[in-house]
Amino acid sequence: MRAFLSQKLAQQLDVELMQQPGFSLDQLMELAGLSVACALAAVWPIAARVLVLCGPGNNGGDGLVAARHLKHFGYEPTIVYPTTPKDTAGGRLYTNILEQCKNLDIPVVREPPREIQAQDFDVVLDAVFGFSFDASRGFRAPFDTVMQSLSSTEVPVASVDIPSGWHVEEGDKHGTGLSPAMLISLTAPKPCAKHFKGAHHFLGGRFLPPKMAEAYNLTGLPKFPGTEQIVRLDSSDTCT
Amino acid sequence: MRAFLSQKLAQQLDVELMQQPGFSLDQLMELAGLSVACALAAVWPIAARVLVLCGPGNNGGDGLVAARHLKHFGYEPTIVYPTTPKDTAGGRLYTNILEQCKNLDIPVVREPPREIQAQDFDVVLDAVFGFSFDASRGFRAPFDTVMQSLSSTEVPVASVDIPSGWHVEEGDKHGTGLSPAMLISLTAPKPCAKHFKGAHHFLGGRFLPPKMAEAYNLTGLPKFPGTEQIVRLDSSDTCT
Repeated sequence: MRAFLSQKLAQQLDVELMQQPGFSLDQLMELAGLSVACALAAVWPIAARVLVLCGPGNNGGDGLVAARHLKHFGYEPTIVYPTTPKDTAGGRLYTNILEQCKNLDIPVVREPPREIQAQDFDVVLDAVFGFSFDASRGFRAPFDTVMQSLSSTEVPVASVDIPSGWHVEEGDKHGTGLSPAMLISLTAPKPCAKHFKGAHHFLGGRFLPPKMAEAYNLTGLPKFPGTEQIVRLDSSDTCT
Repeated sequence: MRAFLSQKLAQQLDVELMQQPGFSLDQLMELAGLSVACALAAVWPIAARVLVLCGPGNNGGDGLVAARHLKHFGYEPTIVYPTTPKDTAGGRLYTNILEQCKNLDIPVVREPPREIQAQDFDVVLDAVFGFSFDASRGFRAPFDTVMQSLSSTEVPVASVDIPSGWHVEEGDKHGTGLSPAMLISLTAPKPCAKHFKGAHHFLGGRFLPPKMAEAYNLTGLPKFPGTEQIVRLDSSDTCT
């Protein structure tokens, strides 16, 4: 089976989902973030302390929504959100989801930790950078610190959509050293998933219309079971 | 246990959810509709043909979202949507969700059926009127036909939040004759749930912050298990 979304196609798909069938970012992010929380809970059903590292874009927004659902599921998430959201439609959505999280008494910290230690956290949710990020120019502060602590921690890392800083097609081309234990691909795996060596690979984001799956040549993706928002992938799903 | 939301408090809670923690209607409706779809699938795991009767307000919007998720779950929903959405923020959301449903090849019909027959449908999802509707003045066309066919069908009916046309506190005060097999209470049961005689009562809409649950005296609600978006209620949950 071969069903990947290149960077260009992933961007195009997002635009199309919001154009023709008229999805709002709120809707897509809600379902994406929910699936991320469900996948994390499937692998670590009793982990309590989850550090949620959020970047400035939609990948970070997915992380925020996941944190909110994790709190409802009984987890103790802590959010690191170093960015001040812009006063745009997208930025206001982040501001609102941050408020929703604070309203649930989830700690929200601006300053990223220099070290992520096993005595403090059971899992790290990596929602720093998604498929639109270009790591070729390095990481601006404070995300250099975020990436440093993320790559060097012994706490298991679950990455949202792509391991942060990886090249969407070529994997860890820029040498982040990040090797997550878990990857939650959203809508469809990106080509870099072929380089993923962790034990747990899930597909989330159950909203892709079959017509679009066909148009993007993604018909080989496994079916979501029953009412589940996630499905486990194995290596046959990501090997060409 | 006693945990009900009167009409006034239910309206106030919705306003508050969208004010302070800044939920958008898109987010709340997505989670509410998803929980409705999950509850229906829990009771009728192999029913295929679901008639989704949608009213002009948020109850109808929840039904539209539920129809979209049901289609992803493998059901064959048919939507009856007699209203033309207004050109307001809420109306545009309905327009968009309708588009999302049409994009999945879900039939959307304007004209309500005069009769709902078991040879055509396995379940009817009643998303006609919610807790803000006042049935004391009767039903305007074409919703008189909708209510007539809904009340007289032998196909089992699942009602979203309250059985349509029922008085929020007093139940079927206006004599609709509607007696659904299933009720999916959203956020918290409304007082009329005490008069519900069907076999299946679920709670959905897993987004209420515990602080607000406390402020509204809803702390007695049962906990959602694991990552589930629904929890089954029994009569002890709705008897005072």
